[in-house]
Amino acid sequence: MTIDYKSRLKTLQERLEEKNIEVAMITAPANVFYYTGFNSDPHERFMSLVLDNRTQKFTLFVPALDKEMAEQASIVKNIVPISDEEDPYTKLKHELGDEINRFGVEMKSVSMFQHRHLSSAFPQAVYEDIQSFINEQRLKKSRDELIYVQKAVDIIEEVLAEGIKKVKPGMTELEFTAELEYLMTKHGAEGPSFSTIVLSGEKAALPHGTPGDRVFQSGDFLLIDMGVSIKEGYCSDITRTFIIGEATDKQKEIYDIVLESNQAGINSVQGGVPLKTFDITARNVIHEKGYGDYFNNRVGHGLGVEVHEEPSVHENNEQIAEAGLLFTIEPGIYIPNYGGVRIEDEVYINENGEAEVLTSFPKELQIL
Amino acid sequence: MTIDYKSRLKTLQERLEEKNIEVAMITAPANVFYYTGFNSDPHERFMSLVLDNRTQKFTLFVPALDKEMAEQASIVKNIVPISDEEDPYTKLKHELGDEINRFGVEMKSVSMFQHRHLSSAFPQAVYEDIQSFINEQRLKKSRDELIYVQKAVDIIEEVLAEGIKKVKPGMTELEFTAELEYLMTKHGAEGPSFSTIVLSGEKAALPHGTPGDRVFQSGDFLLIDMGVSIKEGYCSDITRTFIIGEATDKQKEIYDIVLESNQAGINSVQGGVPLKTFDITARNVIHEKGYGDYFNNRVGHGLGVEVHEEPSVHENNEQIAEAGLLFTIEPGIYIPNYGGVRIEDEVYINENGEAEVLTSFPKELQIL
Repeated sequence: MTIDYKSRLKTLQERLEEKNIEVAMITAPANVFYYTGFNSDPHERFMSLVLDNRTQKFTLFVPALDKEMAEQASIVKNIVPISDEEDPYTKLKHELGDEINRFGVEMKSVSMFQHRHLSSAFPQAVYEDIQSFINEQRLKKSRDELIYVQKAVDIIEEVLAEGIKKVKPGMTELEFTAELEYLMTKHGAEGPSFSTIVLSGEKAALPHGTPGDRVFQSGDFLLIDMGVSIKEGYCSDITRTFIIGEATDKQKEIYDIVLESNQAGINSVQGGVPLKTFDITARNVIHEKGYGDYFNNRVGHGLGVEVHEEPSVHENNEQIAEAGLLFTIEPGIYIPNYGGVRIEDEVYINENGEAEVLTSFPKELQIL
Repeated sequence: MTIDYKSRLKTLQERLEEKNIEVAMITAPANVFYYTGFNSDPHERFMSLVLDNRTQKFTLFVPALDKEMAEQASIVKNIVPISDEEDPYTKLKHELGDEINRFGVEMKSVSMFQHRHLSSAFPQAVYEDIQSFINEQRLKKSRDELIYVQKAVDIIEEVLAEGIKKVKPGMTELEFTAELEYLMTKHGAEGPSFSTIVLSGEKAALPHGTPGDRVFQSGDFLLIDMGVSIKEGYCSDITRTFIIGEATDKQKEIYDIVLESNQAGINSVQGGVPLKTFDITARNVIHEKGYGDYFNNRVGHGLGVEVHEEPSVHENNEQIAEAGLLFTIEPGIYIPNYGGVRIEDEVYINENGEAEVLTSFPKELQIL
């Protein structure tokens, strides 16, 4: 099982050709990884994959200190190191000449600062956004990619199963987070795919809260939202909510509504209908039970190389769902100063336009 | 000990006033945190702190799902939530009107994509880069900030001291990384301030390598580069290199050269001289011993709210070192396919222009 980077690059080249784009510069680390296999965050340093469609030449510019790693990992073998005291735009110009008319960039990744430097180096260039070509490619996951995502899902479900055995009143959110992240590595992950979310009690009402010193108590909601990245470059994302000790009727009611919403959302997933359908279906369940005001975010997001990527599954997205899409379904009810429940699964639309659910961790309310 | 956010905002307002900037939009999460106390990564969603210098009004735009958290944490209390189906630029225009002539932005943080949307919403605006005002403010750390950084340093040194006791041949880099990150949370950190680097044997030659399945063996270099973020929002960064089992003469020779370079670099730190001095002093030691080709990155970087921030301590930086600067001194020798050594400390230039070293973990070669 290997990823065919060359075919990915070829597809992009064809799109650039269609749009008469002479040179394209790819700077988002996830995109550089997607096309080369080199997975690196250059922080504030300059890194880019440059496709010169006039000469069919690929060049990978990397910080000098990453040169050796890039040589090992990248399928693009023409690597230009840039040391800290060099100007990357001068090096780009040296490599490409300054006669570029149509220059492709990811407009969401290139800053106004970079744009100014590019404009000085390539004064006659007009800039075109190539983000959509890349997004379209990354949007549709192949079976090969799905195998990697499934591996990341399997790991995080093992972590969750082993982790919840350790929950006990008196533990803090941060202590439990440390346990979970330890288990991630133990089970073969490279690390969390995003900051692990462990929220207890009333803090479970914060959809993106941060674990802190709050101590687990009997009667608490315990919301766990986490995922892993694996060395093959793909990631997972799952949420389950538990109750510690004993559940009240109101907690059970809220839980059941979110579970029904999650199931309805998943059941509505299929190819050929607008993505908004899945959001609206899940949302309606919560709305009809009178909790509509407590669910104010989209029902899901795509994932793959990154834990947030296209598509966005929200109630206004008219984009038609098609084979190869992979995204979360994660409705929730968040009641300020009381608590909250979220249940999140990962769903793939397969070759036949059917939903395949990657997550399999039980969803019946569990009391820990 | 609390941070005076209001005074930070006031200083920025004064700079905007001097430059006749009517409205400034701050979008980098670390900067939003620096001025408001709200520490959040909005991922692909829109978040910004807007200063309207015409009306002296501050507004914090946040993703709807982060509203409650922002209300709790931010000292700017005028919070505008943006839900996933709303257009942030329409909301900005609603709040600010479209009669803005001079609009301040962080050009390194605002993408070409955002710039296009802003240009549509505010057609007559000319954009000015305010990054340098913010960087100047963040560059100089107060004693209050230093106390938080010292806390982050103390934690990571406890982690390192406890962690190295667990090293033994047969352990993998990833297993040891998991141990270290577990200890970070146990010792009170929010988490790592960057991906923990544990590199063994010949992999220690990769200045930014990633821990993997390589198994520790007797005779290995063991390079550990890590730091923590604490809930007060500051971070630490330290590197120490060890030998497992028994060291060869060549390993000892390289280690001693790097240690001498690290000490020379630190000893050269003082206010009133160009920052390049510290790089050149450390670099000369390595160069004179004949290893100059194996040290090809800058000697250090600033840190504080972020683990990489200004100043950049490289051999061409003519900027004069002044009181309040905080940065790393981290020379290294990296020999491809053999291994490497890096020793990294954190140094502050105090009110009297003298160096204060925050890190105190022993630097004599330790055999584990």
